[in-house]
Amino acid sequence: MGFDGDDTLWHSERGFHVAQDEIRAILADHCDPEVLDRRLLEVERATLERYGYGAKAFTLSVIETAAELAGERLTVDDVRALLDVGKRLLAHPVDLLPGVEAAIRATAERYPIVLITKGDLFHQESKVAGSGLGDLFAGVEIVAEKDVDQYRRVLARYGVAPGAFVMVGNSLRSDVGPVLDLGGWGVHVPHEYAWELEAHHDEDAVRVHPRFRTCDVLSDLPVVLHGIAGAVEG
Amino acid sequence: MGFDGDDTLWHSERGFHVAQDEIRAILADHCDPEVLDRRLLEVERATLERYGYGAKAFTLSVIETAAELAGERLTVDDVRALLDVGKRLLAHPVDLLPGVEAAIRATAERYPIVLITKGDLFHQESKVAGSGLGDLFAGVEIVAEKDVDQYRRVLARYGVAPGAFVMVGNSLRSDVGPVLDLGGWGVHVPHEYAWELEAHHDEDAVRVHPRFRTCDVLSDLPVVLHGIAGAVEG
Repeated sequence: MGFDGDDTLWHSERGFHVAQDEIRAILADHCDPEVLDRRLLEVERATLERYGYGAKAFTLSVIETAAELAGERLTVDDVRALLDVGKRLLAHPVDLLPGVEAAIRATAERYPIVLITKGDLFHQESKVAGSGLGDLFAGVEIVAEKDVDQYRRVLARYGVAPGAFVMVGNSLRSDVGPVLDLGGWGVHVPHEYAWELEAHHDEDAVRVHPRFRTCDVLSDLPVVLHGIAGAVEG
Repeated sequence: MGFDGDDTLWHSERGFHVAQDEIRAILADHCDPEVLDRRLLEVERATLERYGYGAKAFTLSVIETAAELAGERLTVDDVRALLDVGKRLLAHPVDLLPGVEAAIRATAERYPIVLITKGDLFHQESKVAGSGLGDLFAGVEIVAEKDVDQYRRVLARYGVAPGAFVMVGNSLRSDVGPVLDLGGWGVHVPHEYAWELEAHHDEDAVRVHPRFRTCDVLSDLPVVLHGIAGAVEG
């Protein structure tokens, strides 16, 4: 079984929301908050191929956006304040979502579990360590992009057939879609915040897939897994 | 067998040197180049725990250093120029060191080889892909920090005993030292540039270790490995 980390086991997007509020305040004299939000998203999309995911990539995109929108009015204090926002994001303690610890402990007793997450390796490893759950995982796989090829590679490494693999996560695009495409099972745990770059191109098709399940809170996971186990065996 | 990537198989530090020259030029009106170099190294050391390794971490440290040294005189054009230096570093094509391709092909025919590298996951994966050697490696392991624990984990994953493991790399601190401590073999391939944060605390002890070897150019690797194989078997 695979688990996503950010916004499945612990809060992440919430931290980026807080950061974005701080950034709006820092740049309030220079640009309109809505213009800032829109342009930041465009810059993040444009720099994704170069920077990848995570808080460092975010910070660099923020500085680029600020330079563009504020122009000559950008002060050295603004730059320092933006760097500090990024550092706070990186330093933020790991805050587990409700029911996660019990659900992970119960699942790890029955199945080998692996954490499969993307983003910045250094930051992700410190989050795994900070979660206190690291020892329950048979492995931690941090990938550059969560696509069919990367999941295929991870499953090959553990010698697991796709039909016997269940991936649990909050993103239809990264956690559920590619695993369904590979022949595995996808369990969606919705999260209140969704990053726009994580939208799936065809959500409806995912939601009616025979190996798709939802799980409103992770506490329900044992019941959902019981149903999947029945379907696999039956 | 394990291979380091940066400055063992392909140029990396050279790119950072070019970048640092560009940064000195950008900030020439604001600060003395030697002060800049010294302070940048201090900032990199101070931010290592938060940012980790790689070009994104470097870029953020550069901007922090520039803000500190230039103060109010830092312009938005400076900020943009510094961001561009970082992007060029990330975009730089992979440039293999002399003799690498033949040495890797010859080694891969005789032993399973794994690339073990640290730094930014996203950037490292694109370098592996760009090297054209990716298919010769049984695996690519990108770790947050190259210490004894991380090597132990990698060897356990591949089911290899330390005494049967040889690590090849340009850093005594990251590639050779921890592997010797673990009971494995370390082959040092010196590189013209060495990053100061990569210095080993006790180089002399490493250099007289019975399982330490040097290899001036990677073309000599087959001969060095032949010697090690003899020692292991004999």
